[in-house]
Amino acid sequence: MPRPAPWRLDAAAYPYTQVVQTRFGDMDVLGHLNNVAFAALFETARTKFNRHAELWGRDFSGRRAVVAQVEINYLAEGSYPEDVEIATGIGRIGGRSWSILAAMFQGGRAIATCDAVIVMDLDEAGAGLPDHFKHRLAEFRVREA
Amino acid sequence: MPRPAPWRLDAAAYPYTQVVQTRFGDMDVLGHLNNVAFAALFETARTKFNRHAELWGRDFSGRRAVVAQVEINYLAEGSYPEDVEIATGIGRIGGRSWSILAAMFQGGRAIATCDAVIVMDLDEAGAGLPDHFKHRLAEFRVREA
Amino acid sequence: MPRPAPWRLDAAAYPYTQVVQTRFGDMDVLGHLNNVAFAALFETARTKFNRHAELWGRDFSGRRAVVAQVEINYLAEGSYPEDVEIATGIGRIGGRSWSILAAMFQGGRAIATCDAVIVMDLDEAGAGLPDHFKHRLAEFRVREA
Amino acid sequence: MPRPAPWRLDAAAYPYTQVVQTRFGDMDVLGHLNNVAFAALFETARTKFNRHAELWGRDFSGRRAVVAQVEINYLAEGSYPEDVEIATGIGRIGGRSWSILAAMFQGGRAIATCDAVIVMDLDEAGAGLPDHFKHRLAEFRVREA
Repeated sequence: MPRPAPWRLDAAAYPYTQVVQTRFGDMDVLGHLNNVAFAALFETARTKFNRHAELWGRDFSGRRAVVAQVEINYLAEGSYPEDVEIATGIGRIGGRSWSILAAMFQGGRAIATCDAVIVMDLDEAGAGLPDHFKHRLAEFRVREA
Repeated sequence: MPRPAPWRLDAAAYPYTQVVQTRFGDMDVLGHLNNVAFAALFETARTKFNRHAELWGRDFSGRRAVVAQVEINYLAEGSYPEDVEIATGIGRIGGRSWSILAAMFQGGRAIATCDAVIVMDLDEAGAGLPDHFKHRLAEFRVREA
Repeated sequence: MPRPAPWRLDAAAYPYTQVVQTRFGDMDVLGHLNNVAFAALFETARTKFNRHAELWGRDFSGRRAVVAQVEINYLAEGSYPEDVEIATGIGRIGGRSWSILAAMFQGGRAIATCDAVIVMDLDEAGAGLPDHFKHRLAEFRVREA
Repeated sequence: MPRPAPWRLDAAAYPYTQVVQTRFGDMDVLGHLNNVAFAALFETARTKFNRHAELWGRDFSGRRAVVAQVEINYLAEGSYPEDVEIATGIGRIGGRSWSILAAMFQGGRAIATCDAVIVMDLDEAGAGLPDHFKHRLAEFRVREA
């Protein structure tokens, strides 16, 4: 079984942490947070992280970024109505893609990690990520062990 | 960027295919199927596959299996109100875990793949998957290229 | 306790019936379909009914209709993975609004009704629903007892 | 068109107010909060209100209450990522049912109201709501105009 690296479970490794509320409807038949609810919680955290980091400025009108891959590792059960804390940062920065890494905590315990790969359309000249965008991403990198 | 192997996009490689309806609420701001909606569609397909394969018989009372990892690769945009087709089968079978592999198609085109890793609790004697369960899983294996 | 009129539980009173799939995530802690899941199921049925009735033609570009009220009566528990059947038709037709009435069945038993009120923006001249639109709506009326 | 009474849009009329986060997935194609998302937000607020009011004590083991009716009035569009405020209180108290009334605000503006009717199973002797439970409900009544 693949397991996240230990540093992935340390909130201090991520530059941004936020509290996200759980919902009654997140619970599954067993009374735990449903697998898909984890995905929704991470998605909301990711969009708020993007806003916090001001990744999407006026320089990108006309270009489009899409989520190409999401991997979630489930480490422990989550519960309602307790909030979760989600820590987020930038991982790998490539020629036209980057990854957003996150970890979810409840009651101080890591219950899941999420790795999302985002890919940006090439511009008309066939270029990938502009340098200033890469620099902006780099400011929000996770601090690996 | 990681990409699924070509055989993963061939519905014929999977032993079971089902039609799953999309919902109005699956659409995101751009009018495409939302990333999390893909996760919900794959989850529903997985539970119906388990039922079809009769994986959970009376032999397993008292043992519990949980989803440990889900990886989704997004290949193309999906739309509403068209249905999707989801093809599902068993991948790797380990000592106490197995993977359920799936691919989603819309209008004949592969739009996503999903790899889920399921882990079963050890029994009181510390044993993993019973042989008869492994055999049952093996009957529903995907046919790799 | 308010209860729907008896004719509301008769699928034959509605001009259009469709099968809608339930999802694993629709279940609540008790293993029944969650209240909010009913709302999502009715919403999907309503948008497909609108498409079936071709309510939104090219005559309405520039005008906008919004859901102003939704009332759901829960009559019995629903379950997964069984499909539901949703019967839909038009109720009251007013000066600038109309209602879409629906009933949900599972295993032949009525488990919920839904009344949605839709309101259209006035046009620039301050007019409400055009006559041809009212006639179109009237073709899909429910047949009350 | 039915409209909520003016006092329903005054947060001060309700004994309990809470902040509820919106999610990325709550948005519909138009970028507004989806109708069904309102239902999910109200549901979460209702369950947290019940917990706040400690409605479900040890006296009720063996009895069951279900949501019999939910009516939502949509007054204005909601948006993401802003939070909403939901004010909640008890309305009508009957022989075996009661209503939970709520209003949702965003940026100080009322955007929806919700009326839920809850019905409790009769006990073995055929009795409805116990007096002490009615008194508890009455402590959390809304203050009508």
